[in-house]
Amino acid sequence: MTTVAFAGSNIDRADHVRADPGAIEKLMTAHARLLSLDGLDPVVDANGALSWTSLSDASAGSELVFLGLEGDRGHFAQIPEMTPAAAFGMGKAWQTLTALSPADLATYGGARSLVSWHVRHKFCACCGSPTQIAKGGWQRDCGSESCAMQHFPRVDPVTIMLVEHDGNLLLGRQPMFPPGNYSALAGFVEPGETLEEAVARETLEEAGVKVRDVSYVVSQPWPFPSSLMIGCHALADDPSITIDETELDDARWFSRAEVADAIEASDRGEAGSSFQCPPRFAVANFLMRWWLDRG
Amino acid sequence: MTTVAFAGSNIDRADHVRADPGAIEKLMTAHARLLSLDGLDPVVDANGALSWTSLSDASAGSELVFLGLEGDRGHFAQIPEMTPAAAFGMGKAWQTLTALSPADLATYGGARSLVSWHVRHKFCACCGSPTQIAKGGWQRDCGSESCAMQHFPRVDPVTIMLVEHDGNLLLGRQPMFPPGNYSALAGFVEPGETLEEAVARETLEEAGVKVRDVSYVVSQPWPFPSSLMIGCHALADDPSITIDETELDDARWFSRAEVADAIEASDRGEAGSSFQCPPRFAVANFLMRWWLDRG
Repeated sequence: MTTVAFAGSNIDRADHVRADPGAIEKLMTAHARLLSLDGLDPVVDANGALSWTSLSDASAGSELVFLGLEGDRGHFAQIPEMTPAAAFGMGKAWQTLTALSPADLATYGGARSLVSWHVRHKFCACCGSPTQIAKGGWQRDCGSESCAMQHFPRVDPVTIMLVEHDGNLLLGRQPMFPPGNYSALAGFVEPGETLEEAVARETLEEAGVKVRDVSYVVSQPWPFPSSLMIGCHALADDPSITIDETELDDARWFSRAEVADAIEASDRGEAGSSFQCPPRFAVANFLMRWWLDRG
Repeated sequence: MTTVAFAGSNIDRADHVRADPGAIEKLMTAHARLLSLDGLDPVVDANGALSWTSLSDASAGSELVFLGLEGDRGHFAQIPEMTPAAAFGMGKAWQTLTALSPADLATYGGARSLVSWHVRHKFCACCGSPTQIAKGGWQRDCGSESCAMQHFPRVDPVTIMLVEHDGNLLLGRQPMFPPGNYSALAGFVEPGETLEEAVARETLEEAGVKVRDVSYVVSQPWPFPSSLMIGCHALADDPSITIDETELDDARWFSRAEVADAIEASDRGEAGSSFQCPPRFAVANFLMRWWLDRG
């Protein structure tokens, strides 16, 4: 599972440093690196790599998060000034993501997810008071003495499933997708259910298809803003489809040949003859390749 | 994987009903059931089953969440009046949990996690304004017109891992554990990492042990307050242990015979001769049984 996107950063998260303000202070030298961000979007240098500057480029009074260490060098990112509403969604990142190396994509994804969480959590959900950055940015503390709640970065598990019947794959399109695009069905895991139950519930809700034999395939962070995509495979006995029209425009069964054609076309930057698959940095693309390789 | 705890509720989450206030209203009849809760703890009837009453027992002005349907019967729970701080932790639930049937345990776990989320999210993390219940309790909306952010129940993925070396299992004890108790190492998944990366990072941080060949085993909700436990297996080549003393009191390798003895003892309500394992409703207990069965 080495080719999944947003995984394999070269930066060591160095958990032991986070809890030690003195240790973080010591790393904030001229040697330290500050991730260049345009809002939440990546900035790329002439070589197509993530762009880094030094801490002297941080805005006065800005809050910095500690991303971790590469060797003995501290890596930081600045929490951008933006509205919480603007910190959802993908912004202009989409175009840049395909150009980044796997390690850079992972570093960027982790940093984006973390700083975006700060933008959206400046207040305490328990009491409404302002919160303050803590533990190098891996925590926010409520500023009210009577509440004093600690808050931690949010990671939202999402199941995304390859549902198979008679050698065909169930794919759907959301109303917001560009024309011709199809992907694997997906949905957030809810409180009180297992991954396997979430896969079954979402497939039934969205497409009216009952599944069995759910198995885990791969996981991938998806930092828009804070999902953990959990890719699964499942089998369906009955191919009848009834879509939930509030969620999907369409859902269909695609043959192995159609999926292979879409994947090959996407490698050439083109749409397939029957549908366009998600880009390589989306876990659905990985899952489709996994399914084709499996034979 | 039928014996994992907190899974297999008989209640259909009926997502289509949540978005329709009229449909929820129609279900709020004398026929509807209200889950009895003592704060967040379960209330059990004379038969050892979850206790239910009718909506007329809800406190005046209380907020109700819609748990779902059993047949055509709406099932609800009341958001308890308690401080956010009190909504963390297990309270007195521990003693009751072993007595509940699997389906009741799942229903209770999902309900507890959801109502506890409401207690802890009465304010908007984006702007600090009060929030209001929405979609039958599966959403809270910011009451400020200029913000109007929507918030969704939190589910925190946690990796919990059976690390194996030469047929022995790595188990550790946290300072808060009762004397003699050991369990599988575990930790929250962070933004920007895969499940497999989280397993490797946590095992290295807590015990100084490097792992390879991480594989998924099982998932289980853990509603204290909102974890999704993701059980994995991994192999270690080097058994040297260096514990993080801020996280663990001890970590050791246990033989198959020691683990089997602890599991058999726990079925009799006793401690094993070398350690006491977690109770049956903890995923670590399931994982140890899975490892023993695997041979």
